[in-house]
Amino acid sequence: MHSFYCPDINGNQYTFNEEESKHCVRVLRLREGDEVQIVDGRGGLYKARIVDPNHKACTLEVYESAQEVGKRSYYLHIAIAPTKSVDRFEWFLEKATEVGVDEISPLRTEHSERKQIKLDRCDKIVNAAVKQCLISYRPQVNEMLSFAAIVNGKFDGDKYIAYCGEETKEDIKTVLSPTSRALVLIGPEGDFSPEEVRLAIANGFKPVTLGMNRLRTETAGVLVCAAAALS
Amino acid sequence: MHSFYCPDINGNQYTFNEEESKHCVRVLRLREGDEVQIVDGRGGLYKARIVDPNHKACTLEVYESAQEVGKRSYYLHIAIAPTKSVDRFEWFLEKATEVGVDEISPLRTEHSERKQIKLDRCDKIVNAAVKQCLISYRPQVNEMLSFAAIVNGKFDGDKYIAYCGEETKEDIKTVLSPTSRALVLIGPEGDFSPEEVRLAIANGFKPVTLGMNRLRTETAGVLVCAAAALS
Repeated sequence: MHSFYCPDINGNQYTFNEEESKHCVRVLRLREGDEVQIVDGRGGLYKARIVDPNHKACTLEVYESAQEVGKRSYYLHIAIAPTKSVDRFEWFLEKATEVGVDEISPLRTEHSERKQIKLDRCDKIVNAAVKQCLISYRPQVNEMLSFAAIVNGKFDGDKYIAYCGEETKEDIKTVLSPTSRALVLIGPEGDFSPEEVRLAIANGFKPVTLGMNRLRTETAGVLVCAAAALS
Repeated sequence: MHSFYCPDINGNQYTFNEEESKHCVRVLRLREGDEVQIVDGRGGLYKARIVDPNHKACTLEVYESAQEVGKRSYYLHIAIAPTKSVDRFEWFLEKATEVGVDEISPLRTEHSERKQIKLDRCDKIVNAAVKQCLISYRPQVNEMLSFAAIVNGKFDGDKYIAYCGEETKEDIKTVLSPTSRALVLIGPEGDFSPEEVRLAIANGFKPVTLGMNRLRTETAGVLVCAAAALS
């Protein structure tokens, strides 16, 4: 059954926008009576059948719906420095969406090689993963934030900074639990600067380690999602 | 400090092969006295300094070495159907190497879209990740195996098959432990066939779930590595 992501679905009938209608009717060649699955990104999962396969306004009848599908008991916000290679950051977005995360903030840090990010491109990647993997809760991608903005900002939960220093740190697998509310900072290729680490700790962030191996930025981000999902 | 992967390092002196020597001297422009780190892929981690920056046979003196660095207490073998997109499979190889895995067997299954794989290309990807992330234990990548060969083969440990059916299954996070010896099968885009699942179960494989989300093949593979690393 084909999957769709429709954040504005509501009620028993739904009409795809022009782009989705064209994809549905012209590319997938779906016809009247064909069934599809739809997620709304807010926990809703719908089964619908096509009642009017119009290639500009394909209309469906919803015949089954469920709410709070796969609701997570934890809340995870990852603030991460986008990698120099945009492909690697996009991999992170896709994989984090699949494994599970609530909020992603691209982070501008002292050692960042990438100081800007296209939010609409990030949203596209996330939407494609939501649709492909039928992810019921879509993560929110925020505008890029400066390091100072994130460490001085408010967060109702536990705050962690992952970095490579030799100091004693708690292990991510012991700090995250199924009911955690956590904000985790992941640094750029050159890691956070000592000054950034100091600033974070002074603002209540606890140092965490992600294990023995030295990980690339995007791998670290996905591993934190996995640590929450597997907690 | 630059990192290298040299499986044949041994004793107090080491000479890079011609390719590595050229890279070291001509690309990285390292000189006499410069220090590098080397892993051998079998738990050895070495610090060495260049004594002869010859671009065809760069020679180093090892001044520090350690064995069994970051030795894992578990053993994980993942048998996974390569994805249609070779990029996605290569991403799995890179990330599995970073997160940690002992053995990878590309698997030929009923629904596989990719029935062949270039082992030398797989080894290159793994070697690059080993070097980049200074991974002390390099995973072994086997020749592609048929599904029948893996399920009828011997494995001294627990055997699992991850698939998407609705049956009750154990959760990967509860079955893996820091002392597990596990073989986990990951299916292709179209999942294992019901016949393959039956055959695996008949041969002592236990069905496992990787959680609530429907995951792409390569994400499932990395999540299993994460589940072992975070256990």
